[in-house]
Amino acid sequence: MVKRGMLIVLSGPSGVGKGTVRKAIFDQKKNDFQYSISMTTRKPRPGEVDGVDYFFVSTEEFEKRIQNGGMLEYAKYVDNYYGTPLDYVEDTLNSGKDVFLEIEVNGAMQVRAKCPDGVFVFLTPPDLIELKQRLISRGTDDMDVINKRIAKAVGEIKMMQNYDYAVVNDVVANAVEKIKDVIRSERLRVTRVMPDYIGMLGENN
Amino acid sequence: MVKRGMLIVLSGPSGVGKGTVRKAIFDQKKNDFQYSISMTTRKPRPGEVDGVDYFFVSTEEFEKRIQNGGMLEYAKYVDNYYGTPLDYVEDTLNSGKDVFLEIEVNGAMQVRAKCPDGVFVFLTPPDLIELKQRLISRGTDDMDVINKRIAKAVGEIKMMQNYDYAVVNDVVANAVEKIKDVIRSERLRVTRVMPDYIGMLGENN
Repeated sequence: MVKRGMLIVLSGPSGVGKGTVRKAIFDQKKNDFQYSISMTTRKPRPGEVDGVDYFFVSTEEFEKRIQNGGMLEYAKYVDNYYGTPLDYVEDTLNSGKDVFLEIEVNGAMQVRAKCPDGVFVFLTPPDLIELKQRLISRGTDDMDVINKRIAKAVGEIKMMQNYDYAVVNDVVANAVEKIKDVIRSERLRVTRVMPDYIGMLGENN
Repeated sequence: MVKRGMLIVLSGPSGVGKGTVRKAIFDQKKNDFQYSISMTTRKPRPGEVDGVDYFFVSTEEFEKRIQNGGMLEYAKYVDNYYGTPLDYVEDTLNSGKDVFLEIEVNGAMQVRAKCPDGVFVFLTPPDLIELKQRLISRGTDDMDVINKRIAKAVGEIKMMQNYDYAVVNDVVANAVEKIKDVIRSERLRVTRVMPDYIGMLGENN
């Protein structure tokens, strides 16, 4: 029996640069994990390729998938659906390959509920670090500006606690290396490798 | 306030090569974690230096430390004590630096009980992999030999489940890199960095 792959989920607040980091990871050709392409009902933009950027499908097809439990996660933004087709993820994991998702925070929480043994990485805006500097040099900023940034930061921290790892997206190349460290490290988790060892010994353990 | 360092514990069955892997890690000069030197009552061997290889102390001093709760973990082998002085570990962690221990499995379990947020890495003998090959080519080996190796392997797997990560010591350089991946990755754990973020926002969260 092939060992089932590991599910890796990269998420984070809107505008943090998830897509940029994901693209930088997959621009490196030698990855031993598979990117799961999202499905959407929105029309392709110029240059976007079906099966590369997204799987472009009709609203009817997407809704049929939802009804049949065929989406691992999905959401509707501005009249268009976006989501992760379950069959592709399942087939890839069952083939023993690790799967990488880059999705919105709501989607990530849907996946967490279904796949608690996935690896959930939260990409953090460097904003939080800047904010710290700003608070240190108190008085230089309008209190309104500070309070708004604090409120945003608190919201983001609250999201973070539902994840396993937090990676600051200060420099894209650094964020990429950190995410790859996490992937390599998670493959060594006793909870993941233990079944292999038990399997080795068959009925004798 | 300085962020407290992380405790990293490398352990594994006797003879697996813990010391060799640990030495290879610290032969690399640029480590951002500190090796915690063990304390012992045995006499220095030729070439061993006090404060480098071990802290060499008298049995009286070691036993006084035990009574005063001054040992993070300890054990007695063949009339000699071996252990980890608590003060050095605590001082280093409190200074914000990560501490690396290389200790026996019994010691590791004492540390786990006291420091559940430490990172516990189990070094696995490549034996287990060899064993798998051997079982695959059944019939080529004496059943007695196979059964003894299975019994040993089962014992080692049972130890493994008390650890966070399992690293196979097949090639020392590979084991070293895997352990360093784990250290880098664990520093990104939400449970470890969350207090920083909350601290940044002070009383506002």
